[in-house]
Amino acid sequence: MEMSGYLIATRKEVAEFAGVSEATVSRVLNGVGPMKEETRSKVLHAAEKLGYVPSALARSFARNRSGNLGVILPYIPKARLFSSYYFSEMLSGIGSAVREQGYDLLLLFRSEQEPQEYESFFLAQKVDALIILGSRDEPGEREAIRKLKDAKHPFLVVNQHFKGESFPEVDVDHEEGSRQAVTHLIEQGCKHIGFLNGPLTYSNSADRLSGYQKALAEGDLHLDSSYLFEGNFSRRSGYEAAEKMMELLPKMDGLFVSNDRMAIGVLQKFREWQIPEEKYPKIVAYDDSDAAEITVPPLSSVSVPFYEMGTIAANKLLQIGNDAELFRKWFDDPVRELLQAELIVRASSRGNTDENN
Amino acid sequence: MEMSGYLIATRKEVAEFAGVSEATVSRVLNGVGPMKEETRSKVLHAAEKLGYVPSALARSFARNRSGNLGVILPYIPKARLFSSYYFSEMLSGIGSAVREQGYDLLLLFRSEQEPQEYESFFLAQKVDALIILGSRDEPGEREAIRKLKDAKHPFLVVNQHFKGESFPEVDVDHEEGSRQAVTHLIEQGCKHIGFLNGPLTYSNSADRLSGYQKALAEGDLHLDSSYLFEGNFSRRSGYEAAEKMMELLPKMDGLFVSNDRMAIGVLQKFREWQIPEEKYPKIVAYDDSDAAEITVPPLSSVSVPFYEMGTIAANKLLQIGNDAELFRKWFDDPVRELLQAELIVRASSRGNTDENN
Repeated sequence: MEMSGYLIATRKEVAEFAGVSEATVSRVLNGVGPMKEETRSKVLHAAEKLGYVPSALARSFARNRSGNLGVILPYIPKARLFSSYYFSEMLSGIGSAVREQGYDLLLLFRSEQEPQEYESFFLAQKVDALIILGSRDEPGEREAIRKLKDAKHPFLVVNQHFKGESFPEVDVDHEEGSRQAVTHLIEQGCKHIGFLNGPLTYSNSADRLSGYQKALAEGDLHLDSSYLFEGNFSRRSGYEAAEKMMELLPKMDGLFVSNDRMAIGVLQKFREWQIPEEKYPKIVAYDDSDAAEITVPPLSSVSVPFYEMGTIAANKLLQIGNDAELFRKWFDDPVRELLQAELIVRASSRGNTDENN
Repeated sequence: MEMSGYLIATRKEVAEFAGVSEATVSRVLNGVGPMKEETRSKVLHAAEKLGYVPSALARSFARNRSGNLGVILPYIPKARLFSSYYFSEMLSGIGSAVREQGYDLLLLFRSEQEPQEYESFFLAQKVDALIILGSRDEPGEREAIRKLKDAKHPFLVVNQHFKGESFPEVDVDHEEGSRQAVTHLIEQGCKHIGFLNGPLTYSNSADRLSGYQKALAEGDLHLDSSYLFEGNFSRRSGYEAAEKMMELLPKMDGLFVSNDRMAIGVLQKFREWQIPEEKYPKIVAYDDSDAAEITVPPLSSVSVPFYEMGTIAANKLLQIGNDAELFRKWFDDPVRELLQAELIVRASSRGNTDENN
């Protein structure tokens, strides 16, 4: 049986040769349970005779590979990481590519308080290649990624870029995605457009801010910093940001929110205040998750190809395999994929919010 | 630095001893890039001198462990596995426990067409323990799990049980959860209650059917098999099932749906047919996912502690560690945790569907 790139399972042959059951072979080779010494030595003899290597780990060690693609994920205690659309789509895409290529997927949770030591996963041969997700632009993070690059380990940074570095990366043009979103609001007649963004240590937040600024400038609108809000991508943070919007509300006729979850939190607050729907600012959110379609009103949202990012990143890494020549080329001319986002218009940003779709 | 249970990183000391940079040490020990023979031998000498073991895999091999908790997941090409509430919550719970215990999480995608060979992950020492998710009651699956049990590998089956086997498991009382849901509909005055269930090869679907039957019997209602529908837990399958409900609709005054996604598909179809909300059957769904709150009307739903199931399962397995004595006890008296589900009532099953929450 072929599994994750190496061969397993002549266990049956060992069992036949030793005249014992397969379960006995397993117990002996794993040292589990009590076992007569005679049986034990019969099995070990058969295993040696047939050249059976009980552990693929041993073979991996000899061949210097694990059969695992690693993914670095931020760890926040009790947070529902996988329920965020961003991570769930990305991991589905990565998982699909990994499976098709016969690898397994090792999830490596990193706490933001800890020093980043990504290289150790390679030194420990826990992974053959590494995807870094949910990265922030911080000195420790840059340093850790630079180390990976210096040591020429195969890795990719996904949905994040670092100005001034040339790390291999797969990203989305979030500046352009945001520019489209805000331009659409301007075309719908909005003059005072609020912006609920995520933390600026994420390059995609910084890019979205640029896109917002660009669109305002192109529409001859002024940037008023009292219209800028920040959340942490959670629904709760959207709900809380909405409270700060209250006094601006009659004037704020448009709102751009950098993910659907926060927008849903904003809508929740509006509903609590019993603002009639036709008085809502026109809203465009971001991500175009499943939830965007089922809110009331359905959310206009910028669709981001997270799943495709995941498959592209995993496929690029796994193509390299362990080829030293390819490694060098990889770093001489690092991968810099830039995918496109696309605005999907629904009732939340249209003139008539009675409309249902 | 302590990582996943073993020690790493005297690389710095090796670098100092050899009088080279840390990056050079990595390059030499990983055999990456061109390198002067003199430098190479200096580094190798220093590593040997200091007893530096470049690979934690080598150490794991000696210690017979991987530092990984494995999770078996069903693989369906192009499906968004992680975007299902069930898997995303469960994996968040498992991930959290794994992280707190210093392990890493290895995701093992299994295609339903392939023969199941779970034991190979232990023989290959890719995992120290295994959680089996999304299992179905099929002969090949039973056989594969029996093999794990016979060889006394530490594993747990989660949210699925197999009649007649005593596999270690963590499950939820879905029969009781369903009984509550349907009893609630009966209390709301429903007399003709439809049931959109998942495939019966999942024990939780079979349990939900029992709960439905029990509640009907307790309410002196007759089971009419033309009120039974089956979907595959996707929104689309709910949408399609709704088409089959059409002719029953005026009479069908209650509907129990075995997950929120399918219920959302049903609502979508009702909206397309422009059925006024007050004419909807009273609906109770299952899972109580984030989406349940934001549909129109908000969905009554049975809340299932998926996250807790994940943490409980992972903690139980990781406590065992590699202790042969604990292994034996584990199988003498297998873990059989049964958690409780809880009905959350919202507008979809109340008398007044105008109400928003």
